[in-house]
Amino acid sequence: MSVFPQKVRIVEVGARDGLQNEKAVTTADKVALINALAAAGLKDIEAGAFVSPKWVPQMADSADVISALNLPDVNLSALTPNLKGAQAAHAAGIKEFAIFTAASESFCQKNINCSIEQSIERFSDVMEFAKAHNIKVRGYVSCVLGCPYEGEIDPQAVLYVSQKLLALGCYEISLGDTIGVGTAKKVTELLTLLLQHIDKSQLAVHFHDTYGQALTNIYAALNLGIATVDAAVAGLGGCPYAKGASGNVATEDVVYLLQGLGIKHAIDLQRLSDAGWQITKALGKQPVSKVSIALHAK
Amino acid sequence: MSVFPQKVRIVEVGARDGLQNEKAVTTADKVALINALAAAGLKDIEAGAFVSPKWVPQMADSADVISALNLPDVNLSALTPNLKGAQAAHAAGIKEFAIFTAASESFCQKNINCSIEQSIERFSDVMEFAKAHNIKVRGYVSCVLGCPYEGEIDPQAVLYVSQKLLALGCYEISLGDTIGVGTAKKVTELLTLLLQHIDKSQLAVHFHDTYGQALTNIYAALNLGIATVDAAVAGLGGCPYAKGASGNVATEDVVYLLQGLGIKHAIDLQRLSDAGWQITKALGKQPVSKVSIALHAK
Repeated sequence: MSVFPQKVRIVEVGARDGLQNEKAVTTADKVALINALAAAGLKDIEAGAFVSPKWVPQMADSADVISALNLPDVNLSALTPNLKGAQAAHAAGIKEFAIFTAASESFCQKNINCSIEQSIERFSDVMEFAKAHNIKVRGYVSCVLGCPYEGEIDPQAVLYVSQKLLALGCYEISLGDTIGVGTAKKVTELLTLLLQHIDKSQLAVHFHDTYGQALTNIYAALNLGIATVDAAVAGLGGCPYAKGASGNVATEDVVYLLQGLGIKHAIDLQRLSDAGWQITKALGKQPVSKVSIALHAK
Repeated sequence: MSVFPQKVRIVEVGARDGLQNEKAVTTADKVALINALAAAGLKDIEAGAFVSPKWVPQMADSADVISALNLPDVNLSALTPNLKGAQAAHAAGIKEFAIFTAASESFCQKNINCSIEQSIERFSDVMEFAKAHNIKVRGYVSCVLGCPYEGEIDPQAVLYVSQKLLALGCYEISLGDTIGVGTAKKVTELLTLLLQHIDKSQLAVHFHDTYGQALTNIYAALNLGIATVDAAVAGLGGCPYAKGASGNVATEDVVYLLQGLGIKHAIDLQRLSDAGWQITKALGKQPVSKVSIALHAK
């Protein structure tokens, strides 16, 4: 039986997960983007990452970006992989942290140089710091529907990691199909398992559109009552495992889907589309959003 | 309750509905495309249109294209809007005709200069000719989920036209979201109505990806047991109502979806993708298929 949610909360990840995988833009471009996203009605915006600029030069100015924002009604979050990052994010005014691990051992090893277990242990000081400062923490689990190194991922592994992160104190788990290989059947199977153990209010989906399946996968997730969806304006961000391939699902396309399903979202599609054209102009490309291109062509 | 079909038949429309909305390519390019599609396992290929070259110059060489093909195992079809077209298609060796009308009066008037009723009456000689020569006829109904002139379309109008075409002798109705505005809820509502009156074996879906919803809409249709899907390799064909916007859903993306759902289809995805790269090279563009781009980037 379908149990579509009445309302969906979109977590806009374009300014972080998106721009992290694009060429660098100026601090002013990022500030303008986040202000435009807020003006379009987005209430949850991932605004940066407090990571080593050696590894992610695109996010080196996250403190400056966040300090330049004045959006009291918006929940601005940032990736904080360690205590140093968490402290810097807090100093910049961030009210929500995000931590990141994987459902794949190989991916975890290659990406963050440790086992899944160790990655979770390493977050304990970030979690303590967050608790002491009344900061919410979101947990990302990547490779939930497939891994570039291991291929298939056991849904039980996703359940295990998700429960660990919740036990650690995360308020929500964002389930990431990092390489965009999943299809609706796998999404349904994975979520059906997770929902036997985790309340749907604690789960979000984060799909990449590498194989064009993201929107269909979101539809399958909505069909099971999932009410939080990550998306990136203009489909920002490519796929590091397939050059030239698509990145995050475009927020515009998700909003169009929600409108069609009669699900509330509170976002102004035209302003959102304009924000996408603005940032892609700075990147010297066009939005990777069919909705945005169709609206623009009209 | 979901009733996914075990097997799906894909009707490949790239060489007609696709190329009709692209710049002209050579007869040799078309022949090579259709041969490559057949080699990839496609058994139903729309190969041309017998229409006035004044209106559709891209299809002026349909007779030459079809005469150059030798594909006894493939069901080659062609658009035959009138008796003259039907006779020419038959002479070229076509074994299946396709006729075309709309669920929108305004669209019908603007596109084929007559009312829906008249458009159906006009097909009676084509139908007679087909019957006399033992040729199957497929009926296209366009604008089933929205019209560029009227906006919303009443599902009852779609039912009415579909039943008329079936009564006329069509073996199957291809339901076209010509401007790609539909979403999964509308698809579900429309098909739920139609399936109360028409057997699912007589219905096919034909979705355009203008707003990125085509694959999700196909998923919704499969979920109701629809087992025939129109698609165009490389997402050929743009949208005449929004320049630069997407055209037909890409066959590669549909095949990837079917694979993920465990639905049989008999198509070799790599060969299909190669066929798409070949024809888009002739068009001076890239495939509009995320699957094809991701496979190529690997």
